[in-house]
Amino acid sequence: MKETPQPSKVSQMVLRLRRAAERNRTAAVAELVGNVHPREVAEALLELDSAERLWCFRHLPAAMKPDVLAGLEELGAVDFINALSDAELAEAVEEMAPDDAADVIADLVAHRGSTVLKLMSKEDSEEIRGLLQYGPETAGGIMTPDVVSLPSDMTVAQALQRLGEVETDEPIYNVFVTDSQGELVGVVRLWDLVRLKDRRATLGEVADRDIVAARVDMDQEEVSRLMRRFDLAAIPVVDQAGRLVGRITADDVMDVLEEEASEDMFRMAGSDDAELGAGSPLTASRIRIRWLLITLLTGVITSTLLKNFINNLSHVLVLSFFVPIVMAMGGNTGIQSSTLLVRAIALGMVRGRGIVRLLFREIAAGVIMGLICGTVIGIWAYYLIGRGNMSIEYPALFLAFTVGTAMLCSMTFGALFGALVPLTLHRFKVDPAVASGPFVTSFNDIFALVTYHSVSISMIVVYKHVYSG
Amino acid sequence: MKETPQPSKVSQMVLRLRRAAERNRTAAVAELVGNVHPREVAEALLELDSAERLWCFRHLPAAMKPDVLAGLEELGAVDFINALSDAELAEAVEEMAPDDAADVIADLVAHRGSTVLKLMSKEDSEEIRGLLQYGPETAGGIMTPDVVSLPSDMTVAQALQRLGEVETDEPIYNVFVTDSQGELVGVVRLWDLVRLKDRRATLGEVADRDIVAARVDMDQEEVSRLMRRFDLAAIPVVDQAGRLVGRITADDVMDVLEEEASEDMFRMAGSDDAELGAGSPLTASRIRIRWLLITLLTGVITSTLLKNFINNLSHVLVLSFFVPIVMAMGGNTGIQSSTLLVRAIALGMVRGRGIVRLLFREIAAGVIMGLICGTVIGIWAYYLIGRGNMSIEYPALFLAFTVGTAMLCSMTFGALFGALVPLTLHRFKVDPAVASGPFVTSFNDIFALVTYHSVSISMIVVYKHVYSG
Repeated sequence: MKETPQPSKVSQMVLRLRRAAERNRTAAVAELVGNVHPREVAEALLELDSAERLWCFRHLPAAMKPDVLAGLEELGAVDFINALSDAELAEAVEEMAPDDAADVIADLVAHRGSTVLKLMSKEDSEEIRGLLQYGPETAGGIMTPDVVSLPSDMTVAQALQRLGEVETDEPIYNVFVTDSQGELVGVVRLWDLVRLKDRRATLGEVADRDIVAARVDMDQEEVSRLMRRFDLAAIPVVDQAGRLVGRITADDVMDVLEEEASEDMFRMAGSDDAELGAGSPLTASRIRIRWLLITLLTGVITSTLLKNFINNLSHVLVLSFFVPIVMAMGGNTGIQSSTLLVRAIALGMVRGRGIVRLLFREIAAGVIMGLICGTVIGIWAYYLIGRGNMSIEYPALFLAFTVGTAMLCSMTFGALFGALVPLTLHRFKVDPAVASGPFVTSFNDIFALVTYHSVSISMIVVYKHVYSG
Repeated sequence: MKETPQPSKVSQMVLRLRRAAERNRTAAVAELVGNVHPREVAEALLELDSAERLWCFRHLPAAMKPDVLAGLEELGAVDFINALSDAELAEAVEEMAPDDAADVIADLVAHRGSTVLKLMSKEDSEEIRGLLQYGPETAGGIMTPDVVSLPSDMTVAQALQRLGEVETDEPIYNVFVTDSQGELVGVVRLWDLVRLKDRRATLGEVADRDIVAARVDMDQEEVSRLMRRFDLAAIPVVDQAGRLVGRITADDVMDVLEEEASEDMFRMAGSDDAELGAGSPLTASRIRIRWLLITLLTGVITSTLLKNFINNLSHVLVLSFFVPIVMAMGGNTGIQSSTLLVRAIALGMVRGRGIVRLLFREIAAGVIMGLICGTVIGIWAYYLIGRGNMSIEYPALFLAFTVGTAMLCSMTFGALFGALVPLTLHRFKVDPAVASGPFVTSFNDIFALVTYHSVSISMIVVYKHVYSG
C-alpha cells in the first residue's frame, strides 16, 4: 500500500522520461507510466522542457492522454496545450469529462476552440459548447452536466436497476428527483437509496425536498460558501426555470477555494494570481507594475508634502527622522484591519449589526495599539533628540511628545481606513481584495504624513503661543 | 424549491427568536426552527446576545441541539459553549458526530472536558477521547472514526446486505476493504459497488488496491493537498501500522482549506486568524501588537540612520524628500514577491529546479520594475528640485539620477528578499506565512534606507572627486 504518493516518485519519473526522450525510446513511455496516477504523470511532464513534454505526451497510452491533459490544464500548462495539433486535441478532449474538456477548450488561443470542436463528434462538442456559454467563475462554468435525474414516480427498486445502466465520468453521490416538467423537486443520497428497506416506495416519497441548489449564474465563491455551510458532497445546478442542468462536486469546490484564496492574497499584495502560472519576469512585471504605480503616485505627493514640511520646519529637522516609522506603522495597522475585513467578507461573516461593531472594534484597537507604540517611539525620540548635539529650539520632551501623538493619530486613522476601504468596495459590489492592499497603504502613507505634518505644526504653533504669550 | 437559502430568512428568524425570548414564550422556539437547517439556526443564534442565545438554545427541540451546537462551534461561539452546564453539554455531545463532539470538548476551558466526558456513556466518551489524542491540525484531529470497513473475502451481495445495517452519522462514499489483520488493502466506491453486475465476486477481487491514504499524524494541509490532487470525495486515515482508523470527507477538507488560507493571510499581515472569532479590541490589539513591535524596532533603527544621514548630507536635504517613497516601493515589491512564494509553497508548487528559476525571475522582475519606477521618480525629482528656490550645491539632474538609482536598487533587493525569506523559512520547516509580512517589510525598510544612504553618499563622493579633481 502506498501511504502517500512520494514526491520522489514524480522526480524519478521525470529523470526516466527525460532519458527516454533523449534516446527516442518511444516504447519506454507506456512502461514508465503504467501504474502511475494520471495526475502524477501530469506533474512529471510539467518538470520537463517543452520539447520533451510534447514528445512524452505523444507517446503516452491513448487511454491516459485525456486525464493527463486535464491534469496539465489544472497545473496551468497553457503553452503546452496551444502547442498540440488540432487533431491531437480533439481526440483527447472527446474522451475527457465534459467540465475538464470545456476548461481545455477555454484555454485555447482565439478561434482555435471552434476548429477543435468541429473535429469532434456532434454530441460531445454540443455538450462542451453548452458549458462554454457560462462565465468561467460561475456555477455553470465549474459544473459537469453529468447528472443522474430520475422521475419522482419511479420506485426505489427501479431506480437501483436504472443506476446500473448509467454511464458517468465521475462517481455519483446523489440522485436528483424531477417532476414531469423536468423541474428539480428533491434529492436522494445514494447512501440512503441503497439502504432503503421498502423497495416499492417511489422516489417522490423518499426524496428530501429541502434542496440546496445553485443557479447557473451564481458566483463560484457563493457556491463554495453554500456547500461549506451545509456540508454537501455535491450540489445540483438549475437554470432560471428551475430545471436541473448539472452538478458541482466537492472536489471542484476545493479547487475553487484554493483559487479564490490565491486571488484574494495576490490582489491584496497588489498582484494577480495569474502570476502563479506565468513564467517570464516580463509578464510578472507587467502584472505587478500596475499596482506599484499607485504607490509611486503616493511618492509624488509625499515628496511634495515633505518638501514643504521640511522647508517650514527646518529648525525642527529632528522631526523628519520619524517620518518613515510613523508612515510604516500607520500602513501596517491598516493592512491588519483590511486583512480581517477581506477575510470576514469572504467567509460571509459580515452582515447586519456586526458591521458597526466591527468598525468600532477596529478604531478601539487602533487607539490601544497607538497608545502603546506612541509611548515607545516617544521615549526613543526623547533619547535620540536629547543625546545629539543639535541646535534645537524646542525642549526634547516636547518634541518627543509630538512624535508620540502623531504616531497615535496615524495608527488610529490607519485602522479606520483599513476597515472602511474593504467595506466600501464590498458595498459597491467590487471584490474588496481587488485594491485593499495598494489603496489602503497608499492612502495611509499620505494620511500618515499629513497627520504628522499637521500634528507637529499645530503643536509647535501652540507651544510658541503659550511660551511667548 | 428554495434555490439558495435566503440571508433574510436567518435575519427574520433572529427577530422572531428575540421576541420569543423577551416574552419568555418557550413553545414558540420549536415552532420557529421547525423546518430550518440546523446550520441556519446556529447562524441565527449567533446574532442574538448571550442571554437570549442561551435561552433559545435551552428551548430547542432536543433532537436539534447536537447539530446546532456543532454549527455554533464551527462559527467560533466558544463563550457560549463554556456557558452551558455540564449536563447540557454531555447530553448534546453524546448525540453529535464523533469528530464534531471532539471539537466541542477541545474548546472547553481546562479540566471541564473530562468532567463532561464522565457524564457520557462509556462507549461515546472513549471514542471522543481517542480522537482528542491527535493534534487538532492533523489528519487524526479532523477525521471521523465513523467508517465502513469490510473483509476482503466478503461477496458484493453480502456487502450490500451489510451496508443496510450499518449506522453512521454521515453518508458513506467509499467502502474500505481490510485483510484479516485489519490492514487496509483496498477501496470500493459505493457508486461502483451498487452497479457491479457480478454479485458473487469478493470485495478483494473488485477493490481498487491503489489507495491514497493519510497517516493519523499527517498535517491537515498535506491531507487537503492530497485530496485536491487526486480529486477524492473521502480519504481513509491509517495508523502507523497501516490499520484503518478513520476517514476524512471533502466537506471537512473545505473547512481546512478556508482555515489554512485565513491563517496564511493573517500571518502575512502580522496578525492571527484567531481574530476572526475574537470580539474585543483588547484581544485584537494583544494579537496584532506583537508584529507591530517588530516594525517599531525598525523605526528605532531607521530614525538613527536618518539622523546620521541628514546630519552628513544637510546640504543635500532634498534627498530626504524621497526617503518614504523609496522605502514604500521596496516594501511593496517585497510583499508581492513573498505573496507569490507563500502561495506557491502552500499549493505545493515549489520544488526541484523550479526554485532557482523562481528566484531568478523575481530578481529580473525587480530590475525591470525598478528601472521603470526609478525613471519616473527621477523625472519627478528633477522637476521638484529644479522648481524650488533651494540653495543646492549639486545639479538637479545629478540628484535626480541619484534618487532613481536608489529606487532601482531598493526594488531589486526588495524582490530578492521577499522571495528569499519565505523560501528560507520553508526550508527550516517554519510556516513561511508566519513572519513573511512583518519581517520582509521591516528588513526591506532598513535595507531600502541603507541602500538609499549608501547610493547617495557614494554618488556624491564620486561627483565631488570628479569635479574637484
